[in-house]
Amino acid sequence: MKVGKEQIHNLPLNPVTNLGAYAQQLQKAAEEQGIYLPPPVRLQIGEPSFRTPEHIRQAAIESIQQETLTYGPPAGWSWLRELIAAKLVRVNGYHVSPENIAVAVGGTGAIQAILLGTVGVGDEVLLPDPGWPHYRLQIANTGATAVPYPLDPDHDWLPDVERLKPLVTPRTRLIIINTPGNPTGAVFPPELVHELLAFARQHDLYLLSDECYDEMVFEGQHRSPASYLTPKEFENGNLLCVYTFSKTYAMTGWRVGYLVTSKELIKTIATVLDASTTNVSTLSQRAAAAALTGPQDCVHEMRAIYQRRRDLAVTLLTQAGRYLYTPHGAFYLLIEVSGPNGPRAGRQFSQELLRETNIAVAPGSSFGEGTQGYIRVSLSASDEEIERGISEICAFANRQ
Amino acid sequence: MKVGKEQIHNLPLNPVTNLGAYAQQLQKAAEEQGIYLPPPVRLQIGEPSFRTPEHIRQAAIESIQQETLTYGPPAGWSWLRELIAAKLVRVNGYHVSPENIAVAVGGTGAIQAILLGTVGVGDEVLLPDPGWPHYRLQIANTGATAVPYPLDPDHDWLPDVERLKPLVTPRTRLIIINTPGNPTGAVFPPELVHELLAFARQHDLYLLSDECYDEMVFEGQHRSPASYLTPKEFENGNLLCVYTFSKTYAMTGWRVGYLVTSKELIKTIATVLDASTTNVSTLSQRAAAAALTGPQDCVHEMRAIYQRRRDLAVTLLTQAGRYLYTPHGAFYLLIEVSGPNGPRAGRQFSQELLRETNIAVAPGSSFGEGTQGYIRVSLSASDEEIERGISEICAFANRQ
Repeated sequence: MKVGKEQIHNLPLNPVTNLGAYAQQLQKAAEEQGIYLPPPVRLQIGEPSFRTPEHIRQAAIESIQQETLTYGPPAGWSWLRELIAAKLVRVNGYHVSPENIAVAVGGTGAIQAILLGTVGVGDEVLLPDPGWPHYRLQIANTGATAVPYPLDPDHDWLPDVERLKPLVTPRTRLIIINTPGNPTGAVFPPELVHELLAFARQHDLYLLSDECYDEMVFEGQHRSPASYLTPKEFENGNLLCVYTFSKTYAMTGWRVGYLVTSKELIKTIATVLDASTTNVSTLSQRAAAAALTGPQDCVHEMRAIYQRRRDLAVTLLTQAGRYLYTPHGAFYLLIEVSGPNGPRAGRQFSQELLRETNIAVAPGSSFGEGTQGYIRVSLSASDEEIERGISEICAFANRQ
Repeated sequence: MKVGKEQIHNLPLNPVTNLGAYAQQLQKAAEEQGIYLPPPVRLQIGEPSFRTPEHIRQAAIESIQQETLTYGPPAGWSWLRELIAAKLVRVNGYHVSPENIAVAVGGTGAIQAILLGTVGVGDEVLLPDPGWPHYRLQIANTGATAVPYPLDPDHDWLPDVERLKPLVTPRTRLIIINTPGNPTGAVFPPELVHELLAFARQHDLYLLSDECYDEMVFEGQHRSPASYLTPKEFENGNLLCVYTFSKTYAMTGWRVGYLVTSKELIKTIATVLDASTTNVSTLSQRAAAAALTGPQDCVHEMRAIYQRRRDLAVTLLTQAGRYLYTPHGAFYLLIEVSGPNGPRAGRQFSQELLRETNIAVAPGSSFGEGTQGYIRVSLSASDEEIERGISEICAFANRQ
């Protein structure tokens, strides 16, 4: 019996999702045996705890009531791409035309389409370690080879261009950067973004800039590499920027993201998108349009709440003597879980923590080799969950 | 400047969609110049002319109003997969469990995920000629090589296993079959389905059975290869069946389809789906569930209308002396457009027809090498459009 391409089959299933399934199993088993479990705390997943704002939901309802809802253009409707072009000026500080934009099934769909359109067997892709676990699955789908580069925990989890250079070979074709970063919460300083752009151009690499948390910044400023290029450089360049509605507007369930690159490359990627999904549902595109045209208070309010939770987590970690760094964006925090006897595997820690306290966190090993001794908590949970979660994590880590 | 993988970039953009864009351009140019154009007739696209039934729309509205709409399982919610398992018994005559099913972004997303999960560089994929144009784009995304096999116009556009055998090499890994077929409308006799299944098993090939038009059959019966396998054979086998809500329920814009295969292979494909799109929007899955639990009259009504239009088209072609065959399923018909001086390129014919009569049809060359002299009309247009369209096509073909 065949079981699919070895390369994909041998990868672990998404360990973060799996932990959620494991949490449900434990809960069910406990209920069946009449065992009392403490209230569950779910800190493992990057899922905004907010309901999608009402005006966005209303736009989708009107679309369902009034529109035919047929196939649409593979790269998205022009009315949405025009609104996105305006958003890129307003938020990201650069000018492109709608023909530079393609709408995809979430940031996930955008990144997968980019990778399918640019790399294949024999190519090497540089990706951050720690980084979003999907990158590895997405690279495996293309047949290319994943080459991790380290983010430095001693320097706020930033990449170091000097440590990138030795990883470049004649086969290197693309580098992924991610700021604000998952799982670190790091926001790259503008000069580092500029340096990474120069590095990619010097080595003739595609630069895939994952900016899905672009509007989730607490201190400093998110700077897109695109803002450093003239329009001509952008059209001649190999830069691809990715954004999503999922995080900014609590729209994970609507599955709308987009990518921005040269008009020439958009044509190739539109073909990939066409072959992958035909198009994004028009009603989700209407919801996304309403997110852009509607009031932006919801974005500021959610960001303020994430920031308050970030502060709460940092305070609790400081009190427990486990403070390492302050995330300046996104809504994640890495915690080192070494015990009295030294370093400890985050994966085993996560499983034991879940079994004993009913608190789910993502093991650092899900994000790369360099974070085996860490766990990631998501600040998208409620204040109460963060408070109980972090207290228990620290107490648990301090045990033998 | 790089422009993406050569292989993908060199493929034509979807020629059917392109023709629609060209039609819009012509329309706009004519309006700007104050030129009178005959009323447009759009016969080029496989888009049901019906509005998604109200009870399906209503289910989505309730989902938007009542549900959190977060991320969901990569292979789809279990409540939908259970309903699909029941549909497979009712309509397709075979039993599987929800763990054999994965929900995807349309039949398109299901087929792309299957191909990404099973074939890659160095593999050969057998695909029908003529066949759905997306197959070629989807195979290109995997890096595998497309090897067309002919459908025989002299035998109702059916494949011939004897002509398949010489195409098999040690590199052949998968064969795509499609019944009811696009663009032909052919419905394979059950014994042919059985023969193709035996062929795939004998050569240890994955069999991708595209059954997206399974409920769109006018005469005879659609038989899935899965219905010939015992549960044990199905679990040990390499069969993957694909279905969609798009055609049966006029739900193209909702983007929900699914695939059915062994539990082992579903795990690999769920990883591909996770990496490609994370999951299908829950509100679209609710709409799909309502389609399955609601009254099925809409399916019968739409089928009856498609059949009436098929009859109308066949009558018109017979009267014009251009009758070739009767499609028994789906909603397409191939018309040979040779003129008084012999064969003629369908592509050029399509463009001239559009310019002169404002009637859009899909050139046969979009579907493969073997149908260069044909055009495809879609029976999803209105009776009036089909009547005017086919009359004009025949008159146009009879000209010098």
